[in-house]
Amino acid sequence: MIGGGGVGQTLGAALRAQGHDVVIGVRDPSPAELAKARSNAQPLADWAAQTGGRVGSFAEAAAAGDLIFNVTQGQHSLAALAAAGAANLGGKVLVDVANPLDFSRGMPPFLDPALSGPTSLAEEIQKAFPQVRVVKAFNTIAAPVMVNPGLIPGDHDLFIAGNDAGAKAEVAAIARSFGWEGIVDLGDIVGARATESLLPIWVRLWMTGGSPLVNLRVVRS
Amino acid sequence: MIGGGGVGQTLGAALRAQGHDVVIGVRDPSPAELAKARSNAQPLADWAAQTGGRVGSFAEAAAAGDLIFNVTQGQHSLAALAAAGAANLGGKVLVDVANPLDFSRGMPPFLDPALSGPTSLAEEIQKAFPQVRVVKAFNTIAAPVMVNPGLIPGDHDLFIAGNDAGAKAEVAAIARSFGWEGIVDLGDIVGARATESLLPIWVRLWMTGGSPLVNLRVVRS
Repeated sequence: MIGGGGVGQTLGAALRAQGHDVVIGVRDPSPAELAKARSNAQPLADWAAQTGGRVGSFAEAAAAGDLIFNVTQGQHSLAALAAAGAANLGGKVLVDVANPLDFSRGMPPFLDPALSGPTSLAEEIQKAFPQVRVVKAFNTIAAPVMVNPGLIPGDHDLFIAGNDAGAKAEVAAIARSFGWEGIVDLGDIVGARATESLLPIWVRLWMTGGSPLVNLRVVRS
Repeated sequence: MIGGGGVGQTLGAALRAQGHDVVIGVRDPSPAELAKARSNAQPLADWAAQTGGRVGSFAEAAAAGDLIFNVTQGQHSLAALAAAGAANLGGKVLVDVANPLDFSRGMPPFLDPALSGPTSLAEEIQKAFPQVRVVKAFNTIAAPVMVNPGLIPGDHDLFIAGNDAGAKAEVAAIARSFGWEGIVDLGDIVGARATESLLPIWVRLWMTGGSPLVNLRVVRS
């Protein structure tokens, strides 16, 4: 996990519960920092004690992982991945869960213009790390729903996009292990524009409906 | 109808079939222009002959209508509505069906940065014409689906947003007359950011699925 907030802790705990070794990487893995509450999440020292997972630097997490999750705030993802190091990321599969949301004008957030429109965060990550096999996934739902889609009853969908079919199959298998049945493949990494663009309506449905336990279902003729 | 392309012709024909008087307004309503094919649509002279509707200038359509539909290309909507005239628009309900898509870099289009992010086309229309009661609606589906949601079997949703509850109720009644059952109210006009932002995934689902007959269903816990 590149990033130690609520999303990384939730995905990491679910993968630990399946028996995987998990390392959460953060910018500053000092004991003092690990004792502090994270935004919307418990201290990482508590997470490690509860799950048996480890915490280290961005570079340590990237070096340890066979599969990497980018779970940083999207406007900081490129810097965090640079700190993780291209050599440590190598040709690994990187699941990009982040969204380039700009909260500088308060609520609702909007997509950072530098990372949206005719591009997306996932595409910029793929450009910056051409050997990494980037798969955009899990970025359109709340963290608890990512690892437990049954929290929202009925059929609803998970969107994935990426250039490497094998990498997408690996990520889809993890999603199925969490209970996902509706997995919609949006093609190459350009499809990430479509799913990052879902954040405005997801936030709006949360704000107007009162719960982040909301998702979408694709309906075709 | 402010605009004479496929969307305006489809909505106009459906309203004519219900017995409403319909005027389509275009920039140049000369006979030579009305004889030409429109983008993705038949000549307006043919539309008028088939439906018994009328065609005139932007200003004539705005003056004639009790209810106004903005069905122009979104990047040109503010100019078209200015030509229609604030006095002709008055305090009427304006259904904003347009999307500010920029096709200048080819496919896929993206949202014009000047009309997205921390704003939306509908909000800019509401700011430019503060007396008009703007309702964002019908902008997230293909024209044939707007007036016949049964073209896509199963439950799927129409999104509306606007500042005036009475105006939204009027537009919801029209939607129900077309067969819409799932109508999701996203609150005030800021909700238009959420639905205009659905265009990237709608276009992507069309490109990857092969048909524009695709829509979304909101699923909540």
